[in-house]
Amino acid sequence: MQRNRFLGDMLSTLFDRTIKMRGTDDKRDIFKLCDALLSAEGEVSGLKLAATVLDRYRELDREEKTAFFAYMNDAFDIDAAAVSRLAADYATAPTTQGFKDLSKAAEPKRQELLRRLNQPAGATADLVAMRVDLIDILRDHPELARTNHDFVHLLRSWFNRGFLVLKAINWDTPARILDKIVAYEAVHQINDWDDLRRRLYPPDRRCFAFFHPAMPDEPLIFVEVALTKEIPDSVTKLLSEGRTPLEGDDAKVAVFYSISNCQKGLTGISFGNLLIKQVVSELSLAFPQLQDFVTLSPIPGLNRWLATQTEDEDHGYIATAILEHRAEPRDIEAMAARYLLTAKREDGMPVDPVARFHLGNGAEVYDIHAQADISPNGLAQSSGAMVNYLYDLTLTEQHHEEFALKSIVKAAKPAKSLSTAPLSPKPKDPTS
Amino acid sequence: MQRNRFLGDMLSTLFDRTIKMRGTDDKRDIFKLCDALLSAEGEVSGLKLAATVLDRYRELDREEKTAFFAYMNDAFDIDAAAVSRLAADYATAPTTQGFKDLSKAAEPKRQELLRRLNQPAGATADLVAMRVDLIDILRDHPELARTNHDFVHLLRSWFNRGFLVLKAINWDTPARILDKIVAYEAVHQINDWDDLRRRLYPPDRRCFAFFHPAMPDEPLIFVEVALTKEIPDSVTKLLSEGRTPLEGDDAKVAVFYSISNCQKGLTGISFGNLLIKQVVSELSLAFPQLQDFVTLSPIPGLNRWLATQTEDEDHGYIATAILEHRAEPRDIEAMAARYLLTAKREDGMPVDPVARFHLGNGAEVYDIHAQADISPNGLAQSSGAMVNYLYDLTLTEQHHEEFALKSIVKAAKPAKSLSTAPLSPKPKDPTS
Amino acid sequence: MQRNRFLGDMLSTLFDRTIKMRGTDDKRDIFKLCDALLSAEGEVSGLKLAATVLDRYRELDREEKTAFFAYMNDAFDIDAAAVSRLAADYATAPTTQGFKDLSKAAEPKRQELLRRLNQPAGATADLVAMRVDLIDILRDHPELARTNHDFVHLLRSWFNRGFLVLKAINWDTPARILDKIVAYEAVHQINDWDDLRRRLYPPDRRCFAFFHPAMPDEPLIFVEVALTKEIPDSVTKLLSEGRTPLEGDDAKVAVFYSISNCQKGLTGISFGNLLIKQVVSELSLAFPQLQDFVTLSPIPGLNRWLATQTEDEDHGYIATAILEHRAEPRDIEAMAARYLLTAKREDGMPVDPVARFHLGNGAEVYDIHAQADISPNGLAQSSGAMVNYLYDLTLTEQHHEEFALKSIVKAAKPAKSLSTAPLSPKPKDPTS
Amino acid sequence: MQRNRFLGDMLSTLFDRTIKMRGTDDKRDIFKLCDALLSAEGEVSGLKLAATVLDRYRELDREEKTAFFAYMNDAFDIDAAAVSRLAADYATAPTTQGFKDLSKAAEPKRQELLRRLNQPAGATADLVAMRVDLIDILRDHPELARTNHDFVHLLRSWFNRGFLVLKAINWDTPARILDKIVAYEAVHQINDWDDLRRRLYPPDRRCFAFFHPAMPDEPLIFVEVALTKEIPDSVTKLLSEGRTPLEGDDAKVAVFYSISNCQKGLTGISFGNLLIKQVVSELSLAFPQLQDFVTLSPIPGLNRWLATQTEDEDHGYIATAILEHRAEPRDIEAMAARYLLTAKREDGMPVDPVARFHLGNGAEVYDIHAQADISPNGLAQSSGAMVNYLYDLTLTEQHHEEFALKSIVKAAKPAKSLSTAPLSPKPKDPTS
Repeated sequence: MQRNRFLGDMLSTLFDRTIKMRGTDDKRDIFKLCDALLSAEGEVSGLKLAATVLDRYRELDREEKTAFFAYMNDAFDIDAAAVSRLAADYATAPTTQGFKDLSKAAEPKRQELLRRLNQPAGATADLVAMRVDLIDILRDHPELARTNHDFVHLLRSWFNRGFLVLKAINWDTPARILDKIVAYEAVHQINDWDDLRRRLYPPDRRCFAFFHPAMPDEPLIFVEVALTKEIPDSVTKLLSEGRTPLEGDDAKVAVFYSISNCQKGLTGISFGNLLIKQVVSELSLAFPQLQDFVTLSPIPGLNRWLATQTEDEDHGYIATAILEHRAEPRDIEAMAARYLLTAKREDGMPVDPVARFHLGNGAEVYDIHAQADISPNGLAQSSGAMVNYLYDLTLTEQHHEEFALKSIVKAAKPAKSLSTAPLSPKPKDPTS
Repeated sequence: MQRNRFLGDMLSTLFDRTIKMRGTDDKRDIFKLCDALLSAEGEVSGLKLAATVLDRYRELDREEKTAFFAYMNDAFDIDAAAVSRLAADYATAPTTQGFKDLSKAAEPKRQELLRRLNQPAGATADLVAMRVDLIDILRDHPELARTNHDFVHLLRSWFNRGFLVLKAINWDTPARILDKIVAYEAVHQINDWDDLRRRLYPPDRRCFAFFHPAMPDEPLIFVEVALTKEIPDSVTKLLSEGRTPLEGDDAKVAVFYSISNCQKGLTGISFGNLLIKQVVSELSLAFPQLQDFVTLSPIPGLNRWLATQTEDEDHGYIATAILEHRAEPRDIEAMAARYLLTAKREDGMPVDPVARFHLGNGAEVYDIHAQADISPNGLAQSSGAMVNYLYDLTLTEQHHEEFALKSIVKAAKPAKSLSTAPLSPKPKDPTS
Repeated sequence: MQRNRFLGDMLSTLFDRTIKMRGTDDKRDIFKLCDALLSAEGEVSGLKLAATVLDRYRELDREEKTAFFAYMNDAFDIDAAAVSRLAADYATAPTTQGFKDLSKAAEPKRQELLRRLNQPAGATADLVAMRVDLIDILRDHPELARTNHDFVHLLRSWFNRGFLVLKAINWDTPARILDKIVAYEAVHQINDWDDLRRRLYPPDRRCFAFFHPAMPDEPLIFVEVALTKEIPDSVTKLLSEGRTPLEGDDAKVAVFYSISNCQKGLTGISFGNLLIKQVVSELSLAFPQLQDFVTLSPIPGLNRWLATQTEDEDHGYIATAILEHRAEPRDIEAMAARYLLTAKREDGMPVDPVARFHLGNGAEVYDIHAQADISPNGLAQSSGAMVNYLYDLTLTEQHHEEFALKSIVKAAKPAKSLSTAPLSPKPKDPTS
Repeated sequence: MQRNRFLGDMLSTLFDRTIKMRGTDDKRDIFKLCDALLSAEGEVSGLKLAATVLDRYRELDREEKTAFFAYMNDAFDIDAAAVSRLAADYATAPTTQGFKDLSKAAEPKRQELLRRLNQPAGATADLVAMRVDLIDILRDHPELARTNHDFVHLLRSWFNRGFLVLKAINWDTPARILDKIVAYEAVHQINDWDDLRRRLYPPDRRCFAFFHPAMPDEPLIFVEVALTKEIPDSVTKLLSEGRTPLEGDDAKVAVFYSISNCQKGLTGISFGNLLIKQVVSELSLAFPQLQDFVTLSPIPGLNRWLATQTEDEDHGYIATAILEHRAEPRDIEAMAARYLLTAKREDGMPVDPVARFHLGNGAEVYDIHAQADISPNGLAQSSGAMVNYLYDLTLTEQHHEEFALKSIVKAAKPAKSLSTAPLSPKPKDPTS
C-alpha cells in the first residue's frame, strides 16, 4: 500500500510539470521551429523548442494547420530513392552500419519530430489534440494519410496496454474527471449530475476507465456496469429512476450497458477489448458470486439492413412491419437474430459494427430483446431491439480465433432459437 | 493537490497490475511463442502470450538467451530486397498505400515483437533487463547490433522525457527505494544506512531521481546535492561526518557532487542533462537566494593524460611529479586546467568524458582544486584533483551551441587563470 | 511530501475501519448495554458493546431517544452529596488519593460513557448526530441541559483546534464532499452543480473547509472566497454568471462572502474565527500581492432594529422609508452604519449577531453598501444592505481585546463617515 | 479508494501546519503566559499563546520544569471548599446552573490549560513529551500526582481508540518511521538496517503499528509478527539469519513475537489489547488459511520467582538447578508452567506481568518451551524459557471475564500437562 503512495507521489510531480512547461517567444515561424527541433540544435534546447512549437500550433487556424500538416507530410517524408539504394546495399551486404543507415532513412523524419514534440510535460495531450485536427483535415486532404499513419504508429506505441491504468470512477472521483464522463458518454446520454449520481453512486452500479499517466485528467475509454439478478432485457428498466438498488453481494450478473471512447485523437487505437476483460477480472475478484458477464448493446445497423430486405420474399413483409413500428416483439427479435447471425459483409464479417466489436473480442451473441431501448434513437436504429453479448473469459480466445480466422459467429441457445423461430404469418392482403 | 491524489490513485492501480500479470504454461518453445505473438493470434491473447514469453525468457541460460537474440536478429529482420523494391515503387509513385507498405516492410518485425512484449503490466522492466543481457552478449556477438539498435529505438521512445517523473529522495522515501539508491550510487560509495542518512537527512542535503511510471520501483538516474555557503573545494570535507549542517535558507550554492545512472539496460539513453536542469529549476524555486549551481566533479582522465605528457619539454617534469604524488597543489591545479581546457580528441572534443558531459550540457569549467578527493580512487585517477562545472541556465543553450558546433570549451576566470598560471620551475638536476 | 503520503495512508486505514465496525446482536436493552459498557466488563468487549449501543440508538424513535437521554441525565449524574463530602475532605487534607476520589466523583459518569461510546471506528460521527437529537429534544426537556453540557465539554475537547485539518475545496474534490457543500451552504444558496462550479472552478474563487480526522467525509465549516480587484459593494455582482474571472495573481482583495457551519451537532463549538484566520494566512502565502481581507456580510438584524426606531424623533421617518423600500441608498447606508456602530444590547455588545462574530474575531467595520443583496432574503432582513468587515491580522488581537473587555466597536473611515453622515431631510408633510 | 486519498490529503495539510506553528517572542514568563492563556485573552490569541508556552517550556531545565509543574499543580488546582459548597447546593437543588457551576469548579483549571495548550498544530506531541518529564520528576515530587492524574485523563480522551490508526510497517514505509521502529523495539533488539530488513522484508514477516493523526511521525505501539507452519518453540530459531522464508499463503500460524510500547509519555494508556485483536482480524482477512494466533512471549518473572522457591520442600532443588543453569529442559518447562498457572499475587492475579497482560486480553497459556531465548537477557530472566499465549477471538471475551472477575487462568492441554508433569527426582546427595 505504502508502495503505491510512492507511485502516487511520482505522478503528482508529473502533473506539476504539466502545468509549468511553456514555450518561449522565439520569433521564427513554425516551419523553421520544426526544422530547428529536428536539427542538432534540438538536443539541449529541445524541450523549450518543442513547447514553443506546441504553443504556436494551438494558435493556428484551420488553413494554417493544413499547411503545417502538409509540411510534415512533404518536408519530413522519406527519401525513397535513398531508401531503395540503401536497401539494395543491405540486401547485398547486411552490415550493422548498413542496417542503421537503412533504418534511419526508412523512417520518415516526422516520426522523430513527433517524438521530440512529445518531450515537454503535457505534450502528449497536445499531440492527441493535433491528431483530432488531422483526422478532420484528412477528409479534404487525403494525401495527408502518410502523416496520419505515422501519428497512429507512434500513438500506438505510447498508449501501449502496459502503460494504461484502470481506475474506478465513482462518487469519490474528483468533479473534474466526472465532468469528462458526462461529456464523453456516447451511448446513453447523461443529462445532469443527478443522472450521473444514479450511474455512479448506488451499490449496484460501477464504472471503470482507462487513463494514461501522461494525460491524467483525460479518460481514454470508460464502461458503465450494472449489477443485476438476471440478464436484463431493457436498458430503459435498467436505468429507471425509481429502481431499488441491489446490494453488490446479491448480484448474479454484471451488465456492461455503455462503453464510450473518449479521445477522437486516438481513433484507430483500440482499448475496449482490454477494458472489458480487465473489468471482468476486477469484478470477479470483488464479487466472486457473479455468474454472467453480459452486455446490453444497441444493434445500430438493424433498421438499415431491414430497409434492404423489404422486397425479400420470405420476410419482406416482416421487415416492413418492423420499420413501420407495427411488428410483434417476437418478430423483431427473430429478425434481429437473423441479422446478427447471418447478415455479412463481403469479407464475411457481420454487417453490424457493434457485433463485430464484441465478437472480435471473443464474446458470443447471447439473447435479443425487443422494446429494450425505446428512446428515439433506439427506435430509429433498431426499432427498440437490443442484444446481450456474453463474455466467458474461458472461451473468449477460442471464439476470437474462430471469428478472426473463419468468420464464425458464436451464438448461445436463446439467440440461436430466435434466429430460426418461425415468423408471424403474412397477413391476408387486406385490400383483396 | 487533490488532483494529484487522483493521479496517485491511478499509478497505484498500475502497480497492482504489475504484480498480477503472469504467463500461462503454454508448452511451445520461446521461438514459437514469439511467432504466435506476432501473428494474428496475438491480437486477443497477446497479453498472456507476451507474459508467457517474458516468463520463459527469465529462465533461459546465457547460451539460450544468445539463441533468442539471434532469432530476433535473423528471423525478424527486414526483407531488404522487398524494401528496395517497395521504395523504388514509392519513389516512382508516392501513393498512400505504397507508403504504408514500405513503412511496414522497412521496420524490422522485432520492433513490433518488442512492442507486443511490452503490453503486460510490469513488462517494461523485463525489457530493460533483457537489454542488460543483450549488451553483455553483444561483446561476443557483434552481429546482434541490429537488434540492439531496435531496442534503443523503442526504449528511447518509451522513456521519452515527457514521461519521466522527478522525485525528491529523502528520509521519507520508502526503504525499498533507498535500498536502490545505496546499490546504484556510482561516484562516492554509500557504505551503510548511517552513511545514507548523512546524504539525505540533513537540511543542507538534497537528492532527486527520475522515475518512469511503468517502472515505479526503479530510479533511472539520481543526483545528490549539497547546499553550501561557498563553492566547495573538497568532496572529502563536503561529506565529512562531523560537519555542522547548514539551514537551507542560509545556503548560497547548490553543489551536484554525485550523479549516478541506475539502469544499465538504458545505456545510450541520456537523462543527466535534463535531470540537472530540472533540479536547478526546483532548487531555484525552493531557495530563491541560491546564487550558484556547480558540480564538484571527478577528472577521471587526468592521470591517464599526464602519463602521455611526461616527455613534454615544457611540463613533462611536472606531469611526472604529479604522477609520483610529489607535486605542489598549485601545479596539479594548473595542469588539470590545461588538461580540461586544451586536451582534445581528434574530433576536437575534450579528452575528459565528464568534461564532455557537462560542457555538452552547456556548463562551463569554473574552478579546479587539488586535494579535493583523497580517496584511493581519487588519487589514482586525478591525483586528488576535482573540478567545479558551473551551470548558469541563462547561458547553457548558448554554451551548448558553441561547444556542439565549434568545440569551444567555456571557462570562467578561476579556471582560465589556472590554465595559464606559471608552473613551478624545474628543480636543478639533483644528480648534477 | 512523501511524508504526507504516509499520513494519508494512515487515514485511509482509519476509513476502512470506519466501514467495518458494527455491533453485535446482544439482546439486552440499551440501558443495560450502557450499564455494561460502564462496568468492568467494558474493558475488553468495550468496542463491540459501544458499537452495539450506537447501532441500537439509531433505531430508536424520538420518544425512546428522550428516554435514553433521560437515563443518561439521571442514572449517570453525579452523587452531589458524595462530591460535597469528598471536597470537604480534600479541602481539609489535600492528598493525592483524595484528589483522585473527588475527581472521579465530580465527573458525571455519562462523560465516561460518552468516551467509551466514542471508541469504535466511526463513532464520533454517531455522537455528533446524537447531539443533534439532543438539541432538538432539549427544547421540550430543558432538564436535559446537564447532559448537553457534558456533550459539549467532550466534543470541545475532541474537536480541539489542533486536531482540525484545513482543506481546499475545489473542482478536484470528490463529488461526495461537494454534495455536502451544496447541502450545507447557509448564506447564498447553491442551486445546482453549475452553480457550484461557478463557486469553485474559476481562478478567482476559493473555498476552504475544516475537517476532523475521525469524520473525514463531513466538513465542519467552510468559507467561500472571491478574489477581486476592489472591495466589493454587491454580492449580486460578485456572484453574477456573466462575470469574466480574474487571474489570481491580479487580485488585490480577498472577499469572504459566505461562511457556513455544517454540523448542528457541534453547536456551541466555534470554528469560524480560526478558519478565517488560517485562510487569511494561506491566501497571503499563495498571493503575496493581496492587500485587503474583507467580508461581504449580511446585516441580519438591521430591519428588525429599524422597526423599533420608526417613532424616533431624529431618524424615525428614515427608518420607516427604509422599511417601506423607498429610501435613498445613502440613507440606508447611513442608518446601517448607525445600527452597526451604536445599537447595543444590555451587556454593551452590538445587537447584530454577525457583527458580534466578526468584531469578536478582531475585525473592524469597514464599509457599508446599499443594494448589495437584492435577493428576497436580503431585502427582507436589511433592505438590501451589506457590510464589509476588514481583517488586518496585525490588529485583530488588539481589536479583540478592546471589544471583549470594553465593548469597543472598531470602525474604519468609510463606516465612520457613514455613521455620522447627514440624513436626507424629512419631506414636508405631503398632506399639509 | 479515492475516498481515502481525500483523507490522506487532509492529514497532509495537518502535517504542513505542524511545521508552521511557532510561538511569538512574548516577553512574559511562562507562568504569566499560562495565566493569560486561561484568561479571556486566550480566546482569540490562544493559538499563538499556546505555541509560545510550548516553545518556552522546551527551553526549561529540570528545575524550572519542576517549578512549572508545581505551578500547574497548585495555582490551577480546584478550590475544594467552593466545590464542597456548590455540591451541597446542587444536592439540595439540582438545577442546570448549579450543575454547570459545580462542573466548572470541580474540574482543575489545569485541564482547561492543557486543552488550550493542545490547540496549535503539533502540540499533542509536545504534551506527550511534557508528560515524559512529569513522570520523571514525579519520583522526587510525589505531590505532583494530581497534575499527572489530569494529564492521563486528557491523554486518554485524546488517544481514544476511535482515533487510532492501524498501519502496516514494511519495506515501503518511509525511513523516518523505520528509524523509530529500530529505536523503540523493546523486546528483541534490532541491531541495524540489515536486521530490520530481516524483520520487515521477507514474505513471512509482518509488522503493524498504531498511530494518532496528531502525531503522524510517531508510532504509539507496534507488534512484530512471524508467519510459520507450526507454533514455534524458539525465538532464536524464529529470528535466525539463515532461515528460508515461507510464502504467506503457506503459513498456518501467526506468531506475535514482540510488542513494544513507544511513548513513555502515554504510560497508563493501554493500546496492546486492541492492537493484537485488530491485527488478528487483519491477518485473518489476508490469510484465511491461518489456524492459530499465538505469541512467543518472555516470562520475565520466572527466575525471580524461582529464587523464592529454593527452600521449597517439593521443588526447591529443581528451582536451584534451574537458576544454576544445570536443569533439564523438561524441568524448566514444568516449573515455568507451575509459575504461570499457579503463582499469584495477593489480589489473586498472576505474578508474571506479561501473563497478566495476555490473560487480561482473554488469551490462554498454550505451551512452554525451554531453550527458546538463549540471549543473555533470556537466560537471566527465565533461564531461556518462553511461553506461547493463544488468541482465539471467539473465546477472548469469555476468558477475559473469567480472568477479570474470578482470576481464572485459562490454559490449554500442553501447558496444563507441563504444570502437572513429574519433576526429575532429587539427585542423591553427592557429598554423602
